[in-house]
This record gives sequence, C-alpha cells and structure tokens, in this order.
Amino acid sequence: MVNNMYYGVSYYPEHKTKEELTHDMNLLKESGINTVRMGEFAWCRFEPIEGEYYFEWLDEVVEELGKCGIKTIVCTPTACPPAWLVEKHPDLLYMDNRGIRRPFGGRRHYCYNHKAYREYSRRIAEEIGKHYGQNPYVAGFQLDNEPAQEGTGRCTCPVCREKFRNWLMVKYKTIEAFNQRSGGIFWSQEYNSFQQINPPVNTIEVGAMQSINAFYENPTIRLEFERFSSDSQIEYQDIQTEILRAYTALPITTNGTGLATNSIDYYKSTKALSNYAFDYYPGLRNQAVDSFPYAFARGVKEGAPFWVLEFMSGGGHRLSGSGRLQPNPGALKQAVMQSFAHGADMMLHFQFRSFPIGAEQLNYAIVDLDGVPRRRYFEMKDTAQELKQLEKLGAAEFRNQAAICFDYDTHWALRIKPVNDPVYHYLNYCTAFYQRLSEAGVNADVISLEQNFNKYKLLILPSAFLLDKKYRKKLKDYVKHGGILIATFLTSVKNEDNVGYTETLPAGLTDLFGVSVEEVEPVFDRNKTSVRLTTKAGYKDSADSMWSELLAATEDKTALFMASYLEDYKTGAGVFSKNAYGEGFAYYLGTELDKETMRDFLTEVCTEHGLFKNPITAKGAGEGLEVVHRTYEGKDLYYIFNFSGKELKIDCPGCYRDCVSKEKITDSCVIERSGYRVLLTE
Amino acid sequence: MVNNMYYGVSYYPEHKTKEELTHDMNLLKESGINTVRMGEFAWCRFEPIEGEYYFEWLDEVVEELGKCGIKTIVCTPTACPPAWLVEKHPDLLYMDNRGIRRPFGGRRHYCYNHKAYREYSRRIAEEIGKHYGQNPYVAGFQLDNEPAQEGTGRCTCPVCREKFRNWLMVKYKTIEAFNQRSGGIFWSQEYNSFQQINPPVNTIEVGAMQSINAFYENPTIRLEFERFSSDSQIEYQDIQTEILRAYTALPITTNGTGLATNSIDYYKSTKALSNYAFDYYPGLRNQAVDSFPYAFARGVKEGAPFWVLEFMSGGGHRLSGSGRLQPNPGALKQAVMQSFAHGADMMLHFQFRSFPIGAEQLNYAIVDLDGVPRRRYFEMKDTAQELKQLEKLGAAEFRNQAAICFDYDTHWALRIKPVNDPVYHYLNYCTAFYQRLSEAGVNADVISLEQNFNKYKLLILPSAFLLDKKYRKKLKDYVKHGGILIATFLTSVKNEDNVGYTETLPAGLTDLFGVSVEEVEPVFDRNKTSVRLTTKAGYKDSADSMWSELLAATEDKTALFMASYLEDYKTGAGVFSKNAYGEGFAYYLGTELDKETMRDFLTEVCTEHGLFKNPITAKGAGEGLEVVHRTYEGKDLYYIFNFSGKELKIDCPGCYRDCVSKEKITDSCVIERSGYRVLLTE
Amino acid sequence: MVNNMYYGVSYYPEHKTKEELTHDMNLLKESGINTVRMGEFAWCRFEPIEGEYYFEWLDEVVEELGKCGIKTIVCTPTACPPAWLVEKHPDLLYMDNRGIRRPFGGRRHYCYNHKAYREYSRRIAEEIGKHYGQNPYVAGFQLDNEPAQEGTGRCTCPVCREKFRNWLMVKYKTIEAFNQRSGGIFWSQEYNSFQQINPPVNTIEVGAMQSINAFYENPTIRLEFERFSSDSQIEYQDIQTEILRAYTALPITTNGTGLATNSIDYYKSTKALSNYAFDYYPGLRNQAVDSFPYAFARGVKEGAPFWVLEFMSGGGHRLSGSGRLQPNPGALKQAVMQSFAHGADMMLHFQFRSFPIGAEQLNYAIVDLDGVPRRRYFEMKDTAQELKQLEKLGAAEFRNQAAICFDYDTHWALRIKPVNDPVYHYLNYCTAFYQRLSEAGVNADVISLEQNFNKYKLLILPSAFLLDKKYRKKLKDYVKHGGILIATFLTSVKNEDNVGYTETLPAGLTDLFGVSVEEVEPVFDRNKTSVRLTTKAGYKDSADSMWSELLAATEDKTALFMASYLEDYKTGAGVFSKNAYGEGFAYYLGTELDKETMRDFLTEVCTEHGLFKNPITAKGAGEGLEVVHRTYEGKDLYYIFNFSGKELKIDCPGCYRDCVSKEKITDSCVIERSGYRVLLTE
Repeated sequence: MVNNMYYGVSYYPEHKTKEELTHDMNLLKESGINTVRMGEFAWCRFEPIEGEYYFEWLDEVVEELGKCGIKTIVCTPTACPPAWLVEKHPDLLYMDNRGIRRPFGGRRHYCYNHKAYREYSRRIAEEIGKHYGQNPYVAGFQLDNEPAQEGTGRCTCPVCREKFRNWLMVKYKTIEAFNQRSGGIFWSQEYNSFQQINPPVNTIEVGAMQSINAFYENPTIRLEFERFSSDSQIEYQDIQTEILRAYTALPITTNGTGLATNSIDYYKSTKALSNYAFDYYPGLRNQAVDSFPYAFARGVKEGAPFWVLEFMSGGGHRLSGSGRLQPNPGALKQAVMQSFAHGADMMLHFQFRSFPIGAEQLNYAIVDLDGVPRRRYFEMKDTAQELKQLEKLGAAEFRNQAAICFDYDTHWALRIKPVNDPVYHYLNYCTAFYQRLSEAGVNADVISLEQNFNKYKLLILPSAFLLDKKYRKKLKDYVKHGGILIATFLTSVKNEDNVGYTETLPAGLTDLFGVSVEEVEPVFDRNKTSVRLTTKAGYKDSADSMWSELLAATEDKTALFMASYLEDYKTGAGVFSKNAYGEGFAYYLGTELDKETMRDFLTEVCTEHGLFKNPITAKGAGEGLEVVHRTYEGKDLYYIFNFSGKELKIDCPGCYRDCVSKEKITDSCVIERSGYRVLLTE
Repeated sequence: MVNNMYYGVSYYPEHKTKEELTHDMNLLKESGINTVRMGEFAWCRFEPIEGEYYFEWLDEVVEELGKCGIKTIVCTPTACPPAWLVEKHPDLLYMDNRGIRRPFGGRRHYCYNHKAYREYSRRIAEEIGKHYGQNPYVAGFQLDNEPAQEGTGRCTCPVCREKFRNWLMVKYKTIEAFNQRSGGIFWSQEYNSFQQINPPVNTIEVGAMQSINAFYENPTIRLEFERFSSDSQIEYQDIQTEILRAYTALPITTNGTGLATNSIDYYKSTKALSNYAFDYYPGLRNQAVDSFPYAFARGVKEGAPFWVLEFMSGGGHRLSGSGRLQPNPGALKQAVMQSFAHGADMMLHFQFRSFPIGAEQLNYAIVDLDGVPRRRYFEMKDTAQELKQLEKLGAAEFRNQAAICFDYDTHWALRIKPVNDPVYHYLNYCTAFYQRLSEAGVNADVISLEQNFNKYKLLILPSAFLLDKKYRKKLKDYVKHGGILIATFLTSVKNEDNVGYTETLPAGLTDLFGVSVEEVEPVFDRNKTSVRLTTKAGYKDSADSMWSELLAATEDKTALFMASYLEDYKTGAGVFSKNAYGEGFAYYLGTELDKETMRDFLTEVCTEHGLFKNPITAKGAGEGLEVVHRTYEGKDLYYIFNFSGKELKIDCPGCYRDCVSKEKITDSCVIERSGYRVLLTE
Repeated sequence: MVNNMYYGVSYYPEHKTKEELTHDMNLLKESGINTVRMGEFAWCRFEPIEGEYYFEWLDEVVEELGKCGIKTIVCTPTACPPAWLVEKHPDLLYMDNRGIRRPFGGRRHYCYNHKAYREYSRRIAEEIGKHYGQNPYVAGFQLDNEPAQEGTGRCTCPVCREKFRNWLMVKYKTIEAFNQRSGGIFWSQEYNSFQQINPPVNTIEVGAMQSINAFYENPTIRLEFERFSSDSQIEYQDIQTEILRAYTALPITTNGTGLATNSIDYYKSTKALSNYAFDYYPGLRNQAVDSFPYAFARGVKEGAPFWVLEFMSGGGHRLSGSGRLQPNPGALKQAVMQSFAHGADMMLHFQFRSFPIGAEQLNYAIVDLDGVPRRRYFEMKDTAQELKQLEKLGAAEFRNQAAICFDYDTHWALRIKPVNDPVYHYLNYCTAFYQRLSEAGVNADVISLEQNFNKYKLLILPSAFLLDKKYRKKLKDYVKHGGILIATFLTSVKNEDNVGYTETLPAGLTDLFGVSVEEVEPVFDRNKTSVRLTTKAGYKDSADSMWSELLAATEDKTALFMASYLEDYKTGAGVFSKNAYGEGFAYYLGTELDKETMRDFLTEVCTEHGLFKNPITAKGAGEGLEVVHRTYEGKDLYYIFNFSGKELKIDCPGCYRDCVSKEKITDSCVIERSGYRVLLTE
C-alpha cells in the first residue's frame, strides 16, 4: 500500500477482552482497510498511576495490525485527564462562563492554560513520542481529541482571567489605548487598569453550551476573548506538537470539528501541524453530503491534502436521545468517494464496533455490538477495494478558478452580534454560495483573507462584516489587475477591533464597487420585497431575503445595476451592482435572492468572464447531482455523485473512460441511485 | 360503614377560623362521605417550637367527624420541615444536581439521608403514633407527602455523596471490580478509589427539575445513583413506618405520584407499607381517564387493593398559570366509579374547599372558597350514596389472564439514555399496549419481572431494554410450559449494570423467539416504511413507528413472520415473528404499527390462544368505551364506562342485572353521556 | 421657542472625536429640533477617578447647542457605576434571584439599597445639580436610566434581605400577625421571627430575566417583595431628586419603561418627580402604534403632561440578534404627532446617530453611522417644522368621559399567580378595552384606584383581581351617584394581602352587580362555548375566550342578563349582566367576546348613557384609524391617524379647518397612507 490513501476506522483495544480482540482483529484484517486510529481516551491505561507508563497493551495490537498492512494513528489522550490527576489538581478543571467548573465524569474537563496540566500533557505526549515515534507500523499522531468540543473552548478560570489581562496588556500597551479602541466609554466602561477586566459573556446568564450570543457585553472585549481563547488553545496544542516532533518525522495533527466549534481559528491552528484534519458526521440516508467542509479543509493549509479522522459509519442509537438513521445501501461508499474526490487523504469511520459502555454506549458503528459483520462492514470492504483501484488518481490536481473567502473575525463578530438571527447565518451563507456555484458548473476553493487571491479568476467575499482596513488595498489590487470580485451585503461594516466604521458602507470600498449603501434592514417574512434581476437571458423576479441594502451609484456613476427593487418605497433602488474597475469587475449584492435566480446570476458572471464550467449535467437532477472536476496527467477528470434518490441519466458531451467499470462513455451515461462515476477524458 | 370503601376528601382544619370549621364540618357530615385526610403539612402546628407538641386542634376535628361516621387518615408532616428546624440545621436542605440547596419557602426542601433530619422525622412520627395509634376514629396513616415530587428524589449533598460511595463500595467490594463492570475505561474514567466518585448528572448543566437526561455521564454510575436514591428514600420512609408500627395496627402508607416521578421503585418501596397509595389528577372534561395507573397500582403489591389519596375534584385556578377545566357533569362520579371498578379501596378528592392562602391558593376543590355547596359537592354526595349501594361488589375478584411487565431498571435506563426521544417513551408504550388489549376486550394486570408469570396465559414484555440475565430462564420456562409471550423491539439490549450485551439481540433470547435482530434504527417521519401484517382475517398495511428492527429467522427456521416490510431496502425483512417454543409461543415485534393494526394483531393472538374476551361492545365507540371485567360470587360482573362524549348503545349478549338501576338488561342497553353501568350476569 | 413642545434626540458627545462633534452639531442645528438629552451613561467621564469631576466636555456642547435654541436634558449617570467604584465596593453589585451577582460589564449592575452606593449616587447628582442647576441652556434633569430594566428591579443581596425583613416588621409589627395574614400555615411556613424570612422567587430555579412566575412561594411574601422592591427603588431615586432640587427649579424626572417592567409602581414613583416620563419603542412599519401607553402616561400624575425620553428612530441592526425594520416613509412623523395628540410634552428620538462601539453598536438611529443625513433625518426635520406650526394646539384640553382603572397590586398579583397564562394577560386585556372603546368613538383616560372616579361618566374596571376592601364603598358610591361601571371576570378575588376572599365573588360587590359567580374556568381552545349578546340592535353570537364565569342573579333579581351561554351544560347561564344601582348602573362581564361583539356592547352602553362619541369614521378602516378628541378654545379638535396601510376616505359630518394644510373640510376628506389630519371645528 502506498501512503497516499488512508482508509479505516477508530478502534479501542483497551475496552476489549482477549476474545473480542481476536475476533475484531480478524475482521479488520479481512476488510481491506489500511489504517486504524487508537488511544485517544486511554490515559488511565497509559498512565494508571502518576509516572507509571504502560504501552504493551497497545504495542501488541499495533504490531499485529501492522504486520497485516494496517497502520496506526496513535493519539495523545489529553482530552481526558484521569481521576488521579484531577484529584491532585482540582483547579485544572475547566470553568464555564457562569463560573462553574466542569467536573470529572465527562470529557474535556480541563483548562488549556493551566500550568501543571500543560506539563502533564507535555510529559504524556513525550512518552508516546519516545515509544511510538519510530515505530514502522505507525502512520502518524493525533493530539488530544476535538479541541473546544462541548463548549470547552472558552475557559474563564482564574488562570485564564489573569492571562487574558496580560494578553490585552501586551497587545494594547496602555489602558487608555484599550479604552479608546474598545469603546469603553459606552455604558461607562472605561477601565483604570487591565486588572479590572474580566472575561466576558457572563453579565447576563447564558448557557455554557450556547454559542456566545449574549448581547450586553462590550463587543471588542468579546472578540478579543475569542482570539485569546483560540491562541491559548493553539499554544496548548503546540506544546504537544513540539515535544512529539522531537521524536518523530511522521505527520502530527489533531481532529478539528470543522466549522461547528467557533473558538479556534483553524487557519492559525494548523500552522505548526503537519496537516489539517477534522471530524465529519453528515446524514447518509438518501441525502446529499455537503462538500463545503471539504473545500474548507483543503483550503486551510493552502491546498494541502487533509484528513477526515472521524466519519459517519451507521445508524441506530446515539449519544443523545433521538438516534440516527442507517445509511441507505451505497451511501457509505459514495460518501467516502466524495471525500477523496475533494482531496481527502485519510478517511476513518467512527467507529469499528459499537461501545457497550460509557456515554457513547450503543452508538452507531461499522460493526454492531455483537461483532457480526453485516452490510455496513461489507460495504466498507467493497469501498476499500475500489479505493485501491483508483489509487493513482489521488495525484490529480485541483485547478479551481473560483474561491470563496471564509474569515474567522467575521465568523466571530457575527456570533457576538448576530444579524437577523437565525435567518441569516454567515457559514450557511458561504455554503449557499459554494453550492450555487457548483450547481452552475463551477467548483470553488475556500480561502482566507490572507491567502493569495491572484490564483483565482473569481473571488467571492460573502458578508466580510469585519474587514481590517489593510485588506482594502489587496481587494482593489486584485480587481485592478483583472480579478472578478463578488461581495455582498454586510461588507466592511466593522474594523479589526469589532468597532463600526464611520465611513459610508461598504467602508473604504465605495470606489471599488461604485456604490454606497443608503439604507439597511433585516428581511423578515412580513417585509419581503420583489427584486428584478436582468441578465442577457432576460429578467427574473424574486423576493429578497436575509438582509436588504438599498444601493446608490457613487458620483462618477460607473456602476450598473443588474437588479433593482420593484415594490413599495424601495421601488427603483439598486440592489445588485456591477462596476468596471481597472482591468476587472467588482459586483456588490445587496440582498440574497432565490436559488434559481442566484444560479442564473452566477452563470451570467462566470460565462461573461470565461470561467471553466464543467460540461456534465442531468435533466431534473436539481441539487441532487455533484460534479467534482480535477486534472489528471493533463486530462479532465470528473467525479460525479448522484444524491437524487433515483437513477439519473447524465449528459456528458465528449468521450470518457469510466475509471471504475472501465467502460467507455460517449456523450451520456446512467448513474444508479446512491451511485457515482469517475470519468477521465479520453 | 364497613371498612372496604373509603371515600372522601383532604381537609386542612389548621387553616380555618372557628366559624369556617363549623361551616365545613356541617357540609362534610351531610355529604355522605366517610373519610378525610388531614395533617400532612402541619408540622409548625404540631410542633411550633422544638419539642413542644400540640394535637388538640386536630383531636377535636377527628372526634367530631368520627362521631358522625367519618374516619381520619392522619399524616406525618415531614414533607415540610418548619422554619425553626431549617434554621437550626441548614445543611438538611436538599441539594440539586447543580449543587444548589433548595431553600426554605416551598416544600420537600430536605435531604432524606440527613442524620439529624431522620431523627426529627422519627420523633414527630412517634408522637403522632403515640397520640393517634389507638384512636378509634382514625383509619390509617400517611407518611410524608408525595416523596420525590418537584425533583427532590436525587439529593447530591455531601451526606448523600459520602453515602453513595459507601453504597457502591458495599456492592462492588473493590474499585477494580467497579471500574470493570461500569466500563470506566471509556473516556479514561477508571477510578483509583471509591472516594473519587461523585453523584452524576452534573458534568453538563441540566435543570434541577428536568428528568435525568444528561448524556455525558457514565450510564452505570447514573443507574446506580437512581437505585441508591430510591433505596435511600425507602430507608427514610421506613424509619417512620417502623416507629408508627410500634404504636398502631392500622394501615400505614404514603402517597406515591404514580409513574410520574421516576426516582422511587414502588415495587420495593411498598414492601414495608400496608398498601400502595398514590395521587392521580386526570383531566375530567369529556375525556377518557387512563386506567393503566390503576392496573399498575393493583399490581405493585401483587394484587392487593390500593388507595387513591388525592384525586381530581374540579377546575378553575391552578398552582401554575394556565388553570384547569371543570369536570363536565357526571364526570366526577364516573371517574370515582372507574377507580373502584379497577380495585381502589380508597378515593379522596383533593380537596374539600379551595385554599385562600399559599402556593396553591384558589386551586380547584369540591367546594369553592366561599364555602357554598354547588354542583361538584352534590355530585360527590350522589357518588357517596351510589358507592354505598354497590358496597358488596368490592369483594369481586379480578381474574385477568393477561399481564404487562413494567420494570424500573428499564424505565431508568431509558431515561438515562433515551431512544428516539420523545417519540418513543417506555411508559407510554406500556400504556398503549394496555389500551389496545382493553379495546380488544382483554383486561390486563401490570406486574414486575419478579412476580409470578404463571398466573397468566399471556405475558406482554414491552421493550425490556435492561434485562438481567437471570430472567432469561424464567421467560423461557414460562413459554416452555405453555405461556404466550409477546416481546418487542429493544428487548434484552443491556445487562444489569446498564452495559450493552455483546450477544446478538435479543441477547440470550434468540432461541426463544427464533429470530435475531439484524439492523436497528429510530423511525422519524422521513423514514416511515410500510409493513404488511397478515392474520387469518387477511392482511393490513401500516407504517412503522417509534423504532425499527429488521429480523431474521435463526438457523433452525422455526419462526414464522406475521409482518414484513414492503418498501425500499427493507423490503421482505421480517418484523413481527411467532415462534413455537415448548408448549407455548413467543412473539417478537420489531416495530409499532397503527392502533387498528395493533388491535387486529392482539385480537388474533388472544383468540388463537383462547383468552377470555369480554362480550360487550358498542358500534362506533372507538376508544370512548371501557369495560372492566370482574367476578362476583361466581358470576361475571362488568363495569362499563362511556367516555365517548355522546350517548352510546351497547351490545351485551346475554342477560344482566344493572346493579345501580336494578333494571334487567337483555342483549343491549343504552349508556348516557359521561355515564356508566354495572352489569352482573343473571 | 416656548416651553410646551420639546422635540429632539439623545446624543452622546463623550463618544465623539472633535471632527465628528462638529459635523453632528451642524446637522443638529439645521434640523429644527429644540432638545437633546445627554450624559446618562457618562459617569467615567464625569468622574474618572473618585472625587475628580469634569464637566467641560459637556459644557461646551450644552452651550453651543443652547445658543442655537437647542436645550439640554442633563442626566445623572448612576445606571452605570464605573470600574473604580465597583472595584472599591464589589458588594454594591446587584444580586439576582439565584444569588448571582450581576458583574461589571453590562449596565444597571448595582443594588439600589446599598448604603455606599446611595451616597456615591447622591454625590454625583449633587455635583451635576451644582454645575447645571442654573444653566440657562438646560431644560431639565433625568435621573439614572430605565430603572429596573434588564431584570434589575428585585435585588436579593444581603443588604436587601435585611432591609426587607425590617420592612415587614414595620408593617406587621409581630411575627404572629405576619404568619396569620400571609397564610404561613400553608406548607408549614409559619416563622418564629422576621429574621427567618428571605426574599422569595428562589425556591425553584427561574431565569433572572424571566418575569416573576415561579409558582411555589408564598404569594403574600411575593407581593410584599414587589412592594418592597418598588419602594426601595423610589427611595433610591428620591435621594437624587432631593439633592438636585436643592440646586434647581427645573423639571426632574426619570425614564420609566412604561408598563413593561413590573417592579416599580409608577403612580407612587412619580410623586416626588416633576412629571412622568418613559421610553417607547413601537414598530413603525405599516402598523398602528398602540396609544394605551400614552393614556397611562397622561394618567399617572392625574392628567399632567408627560415626556417620551426615548422613542423609535429607525431600523437595521439592533442590540439583540434579529434586527428591526425601517419605518416606512411618513411613519416617524405620524408617530410623533400621535404622541402629541395624546398629550406628550416632549419626544426625543433614540438616538441621533448610530453607535460604532459597545453593546448597542450599529443600533438604529436618525442618522446612520457615517453621519450622512438621509430620509429619516429629513423626516425629523419636517416633523419639527410641522410641530412648530401646531404649537398653540398644545393647550387643548382632554375632556374624556370614560376611564379605565389600571392597578399595580392586580398587575403584580397576576404575575405572581397568572390566570390562563399566556392567553389572558392583564395589561393586554386593559389595552383591548381601551382600543374597543376608541373604535366605538370614545377616548378613555387611564387612572388608578386612588384617583377620583367622579370626573367620569363611565368607569371600566377590568379584572380588579386584587381589590382592597376599602374600595368597595368607593365603587358603590360612584354608581349610587349616577356612575356607569363596567367590571369583568376576576373582580375582587383577592384581598390586599394577596389572599383569596372567602366571600362569594365578586367579593363584597354582589349587591352592586346583582350577581354572584357560580363557577369559573379558563377558556382554552377545546372548551370555547357560544354566548349570545342581545342589544337593541338585535343579537350576536360569539365564542367566549380567556376566562369563563357563570353568573346567577342575586336573590333580589334586580340584574338583567345581556348575554348568556348557548351550549352544553352552561346553556342559559348568564355571562354579561346589567344592574341598576342607585342612580347609576353596574355591568359585570363574565368572559371576553370577539372584537366586533365587544364594540357592539360598548356602543350600546355608551349610547344608552349619553357619552360623547366622536363623529369621525371611515368605511372599512377597521382598526387602522385612530381619532383623538380634544377641546381647543371651546371648539372640538380632532387628530386623525391613518394606520390602515392605504389611503382612506373619512366621513366627518360638519365643517372643519385642517390645521396643517389650512384647507377647509366639509363632511369628508381623504387621508393619505401613513398620514394624519388635525381638524378643528369651524
């Protein structure tokens, strides 16, 4: 097995009797997978008493699997400090925003800034590095588990409080500067010293598990606390990375929770890691799997391959009360292939066999609790087989010409002060853009504001709500030199301190877009208003949604309006604008329109500016078809996924080879329900 | 008055002025009732200062009523420790799962494990026993009031914490045994000593009033804490029972809250009590009263008569904000008769006259706050009259041939880890079975797993989710010797430690049912799937619900499938199976079907196996008719209740005497809206 | 500018750079407004270090504006104790009902009973009084800001606890008297001393922000704590009033939050203030603005003019997540005129320009954050102009002949123990009466039970749930001497101690109404029952709602029933009664009927008893038309508002002058969408 496609499962040998272990190992070996992840919750087994380390129980399994071609991802177990450690250092317990310590008995009950805990973490990571760093059967390391999950990303304990004050002092130097930039004068909140500042989100009761949507605190302090918490967690993680790196050259990463947990900036957190990795649990019962998380994962480290360390495996019971549906036949395989199509380099199902014990007992897995292999096991086996067959295609390149900017400062700022919540949601809005583009035949990458725009013909900037002044020039330069930019409502409203700009919106960019925002409001059901979009194909009317900005052309009148309001006092106000700027064009969208209209708009823009558009379509597929375009040895490679719930007839003008069935395909083909095709141009 | 039918009210003489007392006593005496319950919240009147006891205020009332044929149930007042006691022992206050003490000012604000409080409770019970134990006007004693109500059944104070640790130590002997059986290895939760273990349900915030549905704690510890809390409360109650028993031979009990409060195992808690008693507040406005609680009440002490110490009395205001509807005319009488039909030996309305004061002020009662007797009073009087007339029928026997198993371990396990919550709910599911059987003409008892199965031709075992291995043989023996067993999805999934079985499901019972469970999942609206049930009468199609288990016949292929899936990838999978086993039959139901189909299925089973089926029906009555069958001096006795909201014409083949109207009934009769009939075969 | 019409904005010079200040001042001066409010959150600017006061920053602004004819309302900044003060006295922080201190970082984080805080508050108020008391450009003073807002009206800290105990001791003298009147015997809650009593609302968890709807505490203690909290806040406020009064003869008031915050009795709190003032944020997008709050505001100090210190200004972002709609064109002006029609003497928009900083950043304002004047600014300018034109009409009198009683004891009692919550809501029910009357052509005042009834021909007493015995004679005397009284269900149910009356309902008033209440219940959807109302115009059938009381005539049979039940067991029971009593009439309404039927009933009553009815109507206007009648120099003056969302044709029999357009109007006219007219009879 070469090292470019890891496929497998999570496994917990420490839970097993000898008989169970033998049984499971045989199944694993016969399944054709090549990777298992182990050890992430086993501190009490690695170090049952302080300073006494035991690895034999794991060594045997690593070796036995390794000999059969299955490599191991070894994890540091720091997500779960054991009872003896908590008993010795009760102040290492995580403190939530109400001042309550998260007690022993769940997981992630630690403060990442706690000095002694950091030392214990470093030490266990070191022991693991020493022991497994050079093991030929080990493929890499995972640090901790799902940092920040279960609302543990914003500790407010005395250690954090003190550190936060220092962090602010280092950044702002003087309390006067802090007061000024943070707008402390509002509600008389100017401080006399940094020692008076506390972590926010506690003046009004908010659930510890709730996102940070309390409305009464200073928004600058709140954003700074997000940044501080993110930095602190990265610092904690990097202590482990550093000590492990001393003992191994293998990949080291951790499993993020994608875009769900908002207290870690993954652009930053992956800098010291070998690659980005995350956990993903989409529904697999007759439904499309959202691929935006894959595009984001690919973009985090600027296009480097990524890992999926945990992925859906089945249905039935669940950690919480409602349970989960089983994947329909074919859906597991289809989902795995989709992740590879999008650039995943590893895909591990969570988990191999259901737990009888603990908080996650009876939870879904590849194999049920009784150890009998059934259809999910056989589908995994089939998948492993097919992956091997497609192996060489892993080298295919992505040459996407469009990119969507996803930014943490904006993500946080919109959590701190939501806009038309829950109708408008930043992440969902970015995702919607990604999907509309995909439906229009254009695959997009996801990038940060710091990354290089110039690789892309088209840049989408959805609601760059908090936009540091320093990006104004970068955006203008991009368009000036021929870039096509689409920005939307809520662009450049706040500065880097989470303070509103006092310039006319979009602040500092009115020249770029040729428009100014004259009036804004949320769009509720009761004020939805008709908008007419005019394209070369004619016009289409659609109600606005999410948010409404009335645009006016700036004095030079260079901007054209592609869409305007049709009703009430808004009649005639511009809402989608297009402005020639240098060699490029800058579009501004003052609201969101319906899906079909957005697809029409994006099709017009992409066509006009000559973006590559994949030629593969299916009549009536709607949103049930996904096509991923890559380039293999100079030829176009298409992964085609049928999520429509029925058999689909595909139009694919040209001549292709199906890389799985080896058939030759000309101009059209059929894809079965829950099926996929991999077509390479002949 | 003989002692087999107690009918009356709760009354609070300690609230009254002399004039009010005289007024009320006259109304009570004229009403024809024979029982009042008094004293359960009067500690500050019994013992206003520590050690000074006053009983005169109650004595006078007991005597005056007693002379007029009205006996008293005297209560110990321990639900409400008075201000002086809380002031002296503030650490007796109940501590909830967030570590917050329940302060003085409500009720049930005590820890049942607190040493001093136990002693104060013993002492006041002793004084009451001494004083009233031999009083000829006293009919019995109630301990405390509604133990565990308002979320007070799981105290986590330091006293309880320490005691819980010892309780675990006694049970498990070594910490290694505890770690192993409880699956402490999950999330690295192995303890080094029992002293490290805390009461659960606090690692993630949960409302103190919420049921125990936090998902992150160890399920074994959580179940053990339920058992410990139940044991502790029983221990507390039995201190009072024991000391009272030293002074009286009269019945001693307490008022449970039926199946609503899930922290006391009533099978255990009634062992030391004279009989089971509970409070019941069904709606009485044109609606059927659920009789499952009566069947449960009758079964708790293996068929012994039970008491209803509090029962609905009226409408209007309410403790909480919404208020309650008045009973329609006739509904109060009908409901009282229904309880007697099901074996109640006492029925006390809560309460005689509305409170002007306190948390329950203005609350519904038989008589309004102004003391003027109105329709509810006159209906009570009429009821008392009619009860006297039917008195001798109290001796009629129950000869039910079907029983439903209700089990606390399963009840708790499904609260700790719900399954498809809130669609599937264990208690509601048991109730549904009881009702479908009743609609099919078969009355059922409710029993525990420990009780004798062999009295019954048919045993229903709904979702015996947690099933101790020791019951496997008992169930097989029952069927082997001719019993008919119906078990359902979620049978034998977990062992006695709340740990999943690693055997194929239903664990240890696949030979009994002749099937294995191949795949499971919750049933949501979006995955409802058609099932075809085939009976002798033909076939009927119905969507599945709650939970879905796909069944396969075991190797010997003895099982027949009465129902199978019709759709999607589930097509053809078996879902209702029937297996001949020894001299009996074992049925396994892999899902729930609609009401009509379930009635058809149960009718088929009961007919095939020759169960007694009551002959009384009404066209179009649907679920608005209830018939209770008993046997009086060898003759069939039928109580028939019309909840349909309209007059009903009843088919009753045969010849009967109406025990109320004395008419002779042949083959049919009419029952008025909200009415009932008591028919004895001639 | 004369002093009878203040119109303007809130403004925050302390937030501004010099350039912004200059820009804003120019806009303010050009706008035509005459008032700004400043300083209410600026303590850290007035007194950045203890004892060092700075006023120059404000002086300059006051002077510059003053010279241009814009006067200032100066505020004391005590809503926000600054960081240094909280650091010095951490125990001044507000404690909520769960015992949690409201930390620094929001606003209103203080205990109003805290001794040192009272002294600091007195001192800053004194400095402000000294400095601005005689300033010719100052128009008046506002104390603090929105007392009790954000759930800060019921502090439970140790200081409050101790003071509450003393407050009770002073009122009740002995603990025995307290126990007796408060019904402490319920649930054994008799106290041995006042020292055992704690603030209520904490025995069961309730959100600190939630209204006081916990159900388990003693209702007397809860009502007393409401009264105590109100008294304490008034005492706190009056410390500032008193010291300011020593330095100025200008008006002194504070901004109440209308009827939204229920912990301050505004009838009492305005006694020591110059006038009542409040904040009002109605929706202004094609919807009617409820004028009940204006009628209440006018009534609080017995008809004195009132101020609106904060009023809606725009849409867009919002403190919380959802945002707010923009006013449609014309709506701002219309709303301002409506407030003046109802007697407002001041109207200040909140606020002039959006905040870039703090918890309220981006919030709606007259001018957006970029300082560019747009349509809302120009509409404000137009409004200022029009107000000047109508100035002399401010002297017009109100001669309303109907009054509605709104009472705090009942308001509190119904929060403590709601009735059919949330269907029935006391304030909404009062408002509904006010609106039905207005629709029937009758403007009403709002008064307290203590005010003079005899000014009015018609008195409406909606649900006087808690009715002190002392008002019985007052009500009877009113009717005896010719008054028309309409009382409704839930009248005279509880006494002044929040204890239920044991007399037949309406307690002590059955002779006045000639009826007794025989049975009560909430009205849910499932028990709605038809009622027939019979008037001279015929009869109308309508379903009951909210609450149902079945009435019976008292023995003398003087009462007539205008409405009776038509269905079920309620058939024939009286529900609307009319009783001649002395020279007047007393009506009792046992339920609420639909809007049209209520209008018919009120029209019948008003016509029969000869109340003035305004002659202006519009076909099909429904509830989209409001007419306010006043008397100017002996002539009828009508303000007419069109909220219908379309142009309306008005019938106005007679001859009028339009005071704005100066046209002569005869018999009819047209009002544009979102428009208004001011018609004076010629």
